[in-house]
Amino acid sequence: MSRPVVEFWFEFASTYSYLSVMRIEAAAQAAGVDIEWRPFLLGPVFMALGWNDSPFNIYPPKGRYMWRDLERLAAKQGLPFHHPSRFPRNGLLAARVALLGAHEGWVGPFARAVMSANFAEDREIGEPAVIGAILDGLGLPAAELLARAQSDANKLALRCQTERAAELGLFGAPSFRVGDELFWGNDRLEDALAWARQGGVART
Amino acid sequence: MSRPVVEFWFEFASTYSYLSVMRIEAAAQAAGVDIEWRPFLLGPVFMALGWNDSPFNIYPPKGRYMWRDLERLAAKQGLPFHHPSRFPRNGLLAARVALLGAHEGWVGPFARAVMSANFAEDREIGEPAVIGAILDGLGLPAAELLARAQSDANKLALRCQTERAAELGLFGAPSFRVGDELFWGNDRLEDALAWARQGGVART
Repeated sequence: MSRPVVEFWFEFASTYSYLSVMRIEAAAQAAGVDIEWRPFLLGPVFMALGWNDSPFNIYPPKGRYMWRDLERLAAKQGLPFHHPSRFPRNGLLAARVALLGAHEGWVGPFARAVMSANFAEDREIGEPAVIGAILDGLGLPAAELLARAQSDANKLALRCQTERAAELGLFGAPSFRVGDELFWGNDRLEDALAWARQGGVART
Repeated sequence: MSRPVVEFWFEFASTYSYLSVMRIEAAAQAAGVDIEWRPFLLGPVFMALGWNDSPFNIYPPKGRYMWRDLERLAAKQGLPFHHPSRFPRNGLLAARVALLGAHEGWVGPFARAVMSANFAEDREIGEPAVIGAILDGLGLPAAELLARAQSDANKLALRCQTERAAELGLFGAPSFRVGDELFWGNDRLEDALAWARQGGVART
C-alpha cells in the first residue's frame, strides 16, 4: 500500500502560506504522510474572482485583522515575523524556481528560506539577486537554476499549474488537496493530514 | 479577581456561527471563561465592504468550498447539518429576540434552537411563527417576547450593536473579542478562550 499524500498548494507572497511552509514537512513526517509541493500564483486566481490586488489590501478591515492574526500565530508557532515593507511581494520567480525544486527534492529548504526572506527578513524575494543568494546559501547552482527557472518550458509549467489551481476550485493559499477533497488555509493542515491518513474513505 | 470574559459576536444566518453557537458554552465553561453574547447583523457590515450578498454567494468557489467544509466540520463536531434550501436566511428577528435573551439569561438555549432550525431542520427562521414556536418550546412567553423584540428601543439597540461591530473592525462572523484583541472565525474560539484566561497580557 502506498503512503498517503497531501498536495500542498502555496504562494510565496501569501502570509498564511508562510505559516504552513515552515511547518508542513515536520507535521507530515509525524503523520506519516507524503507532501507534493505545488507552488502557484494567486494573482491570476484573484483576477478571476474580480480582485486586482490582495483582498487584504482591497478590504482594509480584513487586512488589519490578518496582520495581527499572523503576528499572534507566528508567536504561537515560535516563528520570527516582521511585517513586510511591501505586500504582496512578487512571488513569480520564486515559484518558478520552486517548481524545479519540487521535481528535484530541494523545494522544502528553498521554500522555507524564501518565506523567511519575505516575512522575517523583509527582503525583496522578487529580485533574482535575492533568490540567487538563497540558492547559493543552500549549496545549489544558482546561475544554472535561475536560467532553467526562466526557460519557456518552465514558465509554461507554472502557468499550467496556476490554471489547474483555478480549475480545481482553489481560491486562496495555502490549500491542501487529498484526492478530490479540498482544505483551505493554514488552519486546515491537520485536517488534511488526518484525511490523507484515513484514506479519504470516511466521507460523511 | 473577576472571571475572564470573551465577547461572542455572531449572526443567525452565518454558517460558521452555527458551529460556534453550538459549542461555545461548553467550551467556555471548561475553560473557566464567561461569555457575553453579542448578536449582530452581517448585512450592513458586508454592505460597508461593498458586498450586497453573502461573499459565499458572490464568489462561487468560496461558496462551494464553504458548504463542503461545513459538512466536514459539523460531522467532526457531531452536529446534524442539512444544507439550507435558502441562504442566507434573514436573521433580523432572531437577533432582536436574542438581544433580549442576552440580558435575561436564556440566549444560549434560544440561539442553539434557532441555529438548529436553520442549519439542521431547514426552517424559515425569518418568520415570527418559527421564532415563536422556538420560544414556546423553551417555555418562554413567545407573544410577549416577540412584541418586546420589535419595540423601537430594542430595534435601535440591535442597530447600535451592529454599528459597533463595524467600528470594532469586525468583518465577519463568528468573531470573538478579548479586551481589544479580535479573533475571527469558529477556528479561533480556542485561541480566544486561551487569550482570556491569560488575561490578555502576553501580547507579543
